[in-house]
Amino acid sequence: MGLVASNRPSNSSVLVQKYGGTSVGSTDRLRAVATRCLAAQRAGKQVVVVVSAMAGETNRLLGLAHQLNEGPCQRELDMISATGEQVSAGLLALAIEAQGGQAVSLLGHQVRILTDSAFARARIKSVDVDAVLARLALGKVVVVAGFQGVDADGNITTLGRGGSDTTAVAIAAALNADACEIYTDVEGVFTADPNVVPNARKLGRISYECMLELSSLGAKVLQLRSVEFGMKYEVPIHVRSSFSDAEGTWVVKEEFAMEDVVVAAVTATDNEAKITIGRLPEDASVQSRILRPLANAGIVVDVIVQALSPDGRATLSFTLPASEVKRARHALVESCPDLFSTDRTHTVGDLSKVSVVGVGMRSHAGVALRMFEILAKENIRVHLVSTSEIKISCVIDCRYKELAVRALHEGFGLGRGQRDQRESGPPTQSLI
Amino acid sequence: MGLVASNRPSNSSVLVQKYGGTSVGSTDRLRAVATRCLAAQRAGKQVVVVVSAMAGETNRLLGLAHQLNEGPCQRELDMISATGEQVSAGLLALAIEAQGGQAVSLLGHQVRILTDSAFARARIKSVDVDAVLARLALGKVVVVAGFQGVDADGNITTLGRGGSDTTAVAIAAALNADACEIYTDVEGVFTADPNVVPNARKLGRISYECMLELSSLGAKVLQLRSVEFGMKYEVPIHVRSSFSDAEGTWVVKEEFAMEDVVVAAVTATDNEAKITIGRLPEDASVQSRILRPLANAGIVVDVIVQALSPDGRATLSFTLPASEVKRARHALVESCPDLFSTDRTHTVGDLSKVSVVGVGMRSHAGVALRMFEILAKENIRVHLVSTSEIKISCVIDCRYKELAVRALHEGFGLGRGQRDQRESGPPTQSLI
Repeated sequence: MGLVASNRPSNSSVLVQKYGGTSVGSTDRLRAVATRCLAAQRAGKQVVVVVSAMAGETNRLLGLAHQLNEGPCQRELDMISATGEQVSAGLLALAIEAQGGQAVSLLGHQVRILTDSAFARARIKSVDVDAVLARLALGKVVVVAGFQGVDADGNITTLGRGGSDTTAVAIAAALNADACEIYTDVEGVFTADPNVVPNARKLGRISYECMLELSSLGAKVLQLRSVEFGMKYEVPIHVRSSFSDAEGTWVVKEEFAMEDVVVAAVTATDNEAKITIGRLPEDASVQSRILRPLANAGIVVDVIVQALSPDGRATLSFTLPASEVKRARHALVESCPDLFSTDRTHTVGDLSKVSVVGVGMRSHAGVALRMFEILAKENIRVHLVSTSEIKISCVIDCRYKELAVRALHEGFGLGRGQRDQRESGPPTQSLI
Repeated sequence: MGLVASNRPSNSSVLVQKYGGTSVGSTDRLRAVATRCLAAQRAGKQVVVVVSAMAGETNRLLGLAHQLNEGPCQRELDMISATGEQVSAGLLALAIEAQGGQAVSLLGHQVRILTDSAFARARIKSVDVDAVLARLALGKVVVVAGFQGVDADGNITTLGRGGSDTTAVAIAAALNADACEIYTDVEGVFTADPNVVPNARKLGRISYECMLELSSLGAKVLQLRSVEFGMKYEVPIHVRSSFSDAEGTWVVKEEFAMEDVVVAAVTATDNEAKITIGRLPEDASVQSRILRPLANAGIVVDVIVQALSPDGRATLSFTLPASEVKRARHALVESCPDLFSTDRTHTVGDLSKVSVVGVGMRSHAGVALRMFEILAKENIRVHLVSTSEIKISCVIDCRYKELAVRALHEGFGLGRGQRDQRESGPPTQSLI
């Protein structure tokens, strides 16, 4: 992936800010955002602002589209939904000018943010920030429509839900910006969802690696891809609230002290299902015969576990989004009816995946054991387990999700008053 | 103005259709439009469809903008308002595909419709239809977002209210299309506004020249600039209703038979004002000293009349939009206080300009006389008169507008039952 950035000199005077849908959700909120942008400019920064669509707008547009076509072409959906950010960008530029500033809005194809042609989930291939730099040099606040790009054929593409985060971090990377501020409706990244765990604590800092895990495990605060960009180009990401001036959470390179924290946060996903296929023949191609038709159908399989019986026959279990079960069963019946027979398959819905994440796990043993103990104490049955270097996930019945999250948060000592605030504050120079 | 069209071979199989805001104002209406596009395709045409924003959408967007900024930058307004057509275009493409067709939407910059940089009233400089032709060749209905273009710097521009008409005719010209159908919420071009004159008659045909006059004299059915394009590139324009299958009005090259019709239609504008400056010194530069500051302020002066007294002193009167009177007086006080003194200036508001139009005037004498007689019979005082080869306009008090239109319509014999239907029907081959 060739961000034009790599050859640019470091530009410590550039700040990239991104505002989400609720932060630009009304004319009053847009005025508040304009004030914040101009304050940053007065503080000596060249300011680039990336905006999402006004809250509710994308859903309104897609709702119209689905009224007209139940299986709509993704290219046209991107054409339609990209307008939400275009309107926000223009409106914010006007709001900034109404407060005496100078501003100009730019679209994805004007910046130019080149993506592949995977409509609705396009990936950024390169960012050419010349147009941005030219406007910054004139003293303007540059307002960039988030979420959108353009493919090599000139089609409008979008980056998927949360894609404005990725726009912002990619532009920050391309500009070698000091930092990328992600303004949202929460105060930062928490040790757990504060709606579930009242004494959840805002993290002062978190490593890119942990944030990646959290983003892929259900935390909605940052799009996964934006964290990948941040990590790759070492852009410090500051997740904070547009409704206050409080420091949020810095997502930064791993620091030595982070290793002391075995578990940084607990997170959980919803709406998972599990398909189990038993008594599979002893045959090395069995797994691929089952998983290939699912991949061909574009169904993302998550946790995969296989157990062998003493007789050599295997049982394969995997999780997938509950909404995909019907399609998955259909694909399997079509492609391998011999393996996927009614008598040996079993589907369970209403599952959650509860995970603990922390870079300290690399150097601490027994975290999985502790997790099982905590869940067992609450009589929560674990369907499947999946581990990585820095996370452990347990698939459980959905009805125990909140209980499990609270128990793990308490059991790993993550709450306010349970741990000191060692990891708070912005990154020091040496980190970057 | 270099339309790329000029070197293309004639393409009699291409039809351009344009649908206005009410014609695409709901999902139901979009479905009806899709049906009509596909019917044209089934009838053997390659179909290009130009769409306006859904009715009310442009006003909603500009309303948001004006809430944020009372003197908004036009560039940003164009950025914002252009999204209305983008949404319509994507939605119509989806509606066509839902009915089994193939469609693709294209924006102004994708087509590419190059304009100057006069935001909010940009003029088309060239149209490059390669992108359109490539998609037509694949059997797709090409849906083009109307009203918008792109300037040489890549900024989004808009063509002013009614600009989608101009988009459609310009594309029809560039494609050497058979015809450009303008679908609207009225059945065609009438001899007068049917809301004012109940027995107004739909015209079967009208010449470009007359339509130009009508468009500049208050008829809202076609943007002036679209008629200019049609005339220059001889694109037959068919103005018709999207709510019926009835033939509408063909705007075509002047035909011999049209000369028989002295007056084709009566039209009227509202909200005009008149400024009169008396006792002007005998000085050849006086007129330009008065008119230049107005031009500099971007104020469009319409009818200008000057009368000389026997003593050599002049009285200058001109009309302008009532909304511009304040700015005009300010500009004049600033730049020529000696000429524009309170004691010799006089402003009248609440004026209308009532006009009769017809190519037959060229060869018929006495039309002005007849017009004055008709107005005099109703005791309507004429403030100013302005004539061209094919129209006569009288500025009158606004409160007599409807009365004047009805009297002129009757007096020139334009109503149903007053004249045969000689000029109806589509253009014959020889006309084109």
